[in-house]
Amino acid sequence: MGAQDPVPRRDDFPVLRHLTTRWADNDVYGHVNNVVYYAYFDTAVNGWLMDAVGTDIRLLPAIGVVAESGCRFLAPLSFPDPVTAGLRLRRLGSSSVTYQIGLFRANDSEPAGVGHFVHVYVDSRTRRPVPVPPAIRDALTSLQVSTA
Amino acid sequence: MGAQDPVPRRDDFPVLRHLTTRWADNDVYGHVNNVVYYAYFDTAVNGWLMDAVGTDIRLLPAIGVVAESGCRFLAPLSFPDPVTAGLRLRRLGSSSVTYQIGLFRANDSEPAGVGHFVHVYVDSRTRRPVPVPPAIRDALTSLQVSTA
Amino acid sequence: MGAQDPVPRRDDFPVLRHLTTRWADNDVYGHVNNVVYYAYFDTAVNGWLMDAVGTDIRLLPAIGVVAESGCRFLAPLSFPDPVTAGLRLRRLGSSSVTYQIGLFRANDSEPAGVGHFVHVYVDSRTRRPVPVPPAIRDALTSLQVSTA
Amino acid sequence: MGAQDPVPRRDDFPVLRHLTTRWADNDVYGHVNNVVYYAYFDTAVNGWLMDAVGTDIRLLPAIGVVAESGCRFLAPLSFPDPVTAGLRLRRLGSSSVTYQIGLFRANDSEPAGVGHFVHVYVDSRTRRPVPVPPAIRDALTSLQVSTA
Repeated sequence: MGAQDPVPRRDDFPVLRHLTTRWADNDVYGHVNNVVYYAYFDTAVNGWLMDAVGTDIRLLPAIGVVAESGCRFLAPLSFPDPVTAGLRLRRLGSSSVTYQIGLFRANDSEPAGVGHFVHVYVDSRTRRPVPVPPAIRDALTSLQVSTA
Repeated sequence: MGAQDPVPRRDDFPVLRHLTTRWADNDVYGHVNNVVYYAYFDTAVNGWLMDAVGTDIRLLPAIGVVAESGCRFLAPLSFPDPVTAGLRLRRLGSSSVTYQIGLFRANDSEPAGVGHFVHVYVDSRTRRPVPVPPAIRDALTSLQVSTA
Repeated sequence: MGAQDPVPRRDDFPVLRHLTTRWADNDVYGHVNNVVYYAYFDTAVNGWLMDAVGTDIRLLPAIGVVAESGCRFLAPLSFPDPVTAGLRLRRLGSSSVTYQIGLFRANDSEPAGVGHFVHVYVDSRTRRPVPVPPAIRDALTSLQVSTA
Repeated sequence: MGAQDPVPRRDDFPVLRHLTTRWADNDVYGHVNNVVYYAYFDTAVNGWLMDAVGTDIRLLPAIGVVAESGCRFLAPLSFPDPVTAGLRLRRLGSSSVTYQIGLFRANDSEPAGVGHFVHVYVDSRTRRPVPVPPAIRDALTSLQVSTA
């Protein structure tokens, strides 16, 4: 997301995942540390994939490795507030998937963080790029947003 | 808990707290890393305290600092399974509180880990021991287990 | 850094910070998890700031909060390899500082990850933007790269 | 270590491992969070094992899984201070190894934390207990403390 892009709201995301914060997520400034936003991204994407594909994706012959990510930090999060992660598909390439993720404090509709997360699928042994597996591709249809 | 003590079950704990696991909780062996069990302890105790006391315990003049903890690892946990932490009071001293904590995978009744966690209350500025605050002491009554 | 930008090498960075990896940095795929790259960023920037400014930056009236970050993951890192973080100044604004960071495995000259990290300075009480403090501004001169 | 045991000092440990702290190790109270002491334990033991055995212990047919751990927290640690972990052998059983670990801030000779960490060796596939592998057993001789 460029600095000029509109900030998505909770109901812009077709899938929502509910996460719990932890005591030590908060750093010395009393809010969830920036690094932890990425742990929420990682968990939301992989947790959704496991549910949507219906199998343990860690055991598939092709695994998704993270090629790029980024986040804009818009508002603080803080333990013990729960966090909801919204997921939508930004781009589906031949071997890569780009997710947009929004993090929302409790029931807020404006995000505390908005980011992207790029998986490249690789052979689990050789770690060379392979096509996005059909089971993943099928699951991703539920993350698509019509922009008509 | 000594190695010879009976292992508590889910319904031995008067309070249960629900936590979500994270993708990176799993280490290279495919299960939640031992260190993370302590993050669940820390989160369950402090989250319960905040709810039970009804205030942000981080802002009180007396804060609980961890003096000792320990865990027996009895069974693996693994992302994306949720975890339930059971809490009960083991010992209430003049300035210290000892919690027993059990961690349960999803709906299991046998724990994956059982441990203890000792808070000593200190003055938030001087960090010298002070009595357990009355609000905390009141809250702890709901963690007491009759052993008659 | 856009995907098309040249990848910086170790000797492009005027400051290098040495970090140790941890057992649980590795995730189930046997390499340092993507989230941990951001913990290295956070640690390298703040550790360098503390050394360069010569004071505990957490106690200053203006604190740096992270407004944006991002990383391209170029090669794996793995415990127990040490990691070196290279720092250079990308942009100095009136209240913001953008760092470029490169992460290098052991003595490698090609990075395993390259990213950016934006601090916005805010008043520690009101959390409203303030100018980059003079002590920070002075320290940043050692991170400047002549591009003549 | 029971509460009554003498607290070991830096020079009681035959092996010392040097670790770096991270910005987010500090929690809202401004010191390294209790959970992170266990990350130092885990890293010190496994890092030492890899060095001492001279092989990637994660690929051996027998792996060490943590059966129990515990820590007494004696003094605060704080980023950006480096930490030294001292290791010594407490007990060598047929399939288990108990380490004592001391954590020292910078050059302190009194520990900030003292704990124990029990590895049980299991078959990497079946996860059933097996004897401590000879290569591990040999390495442990350098952690033995004569108590004559």
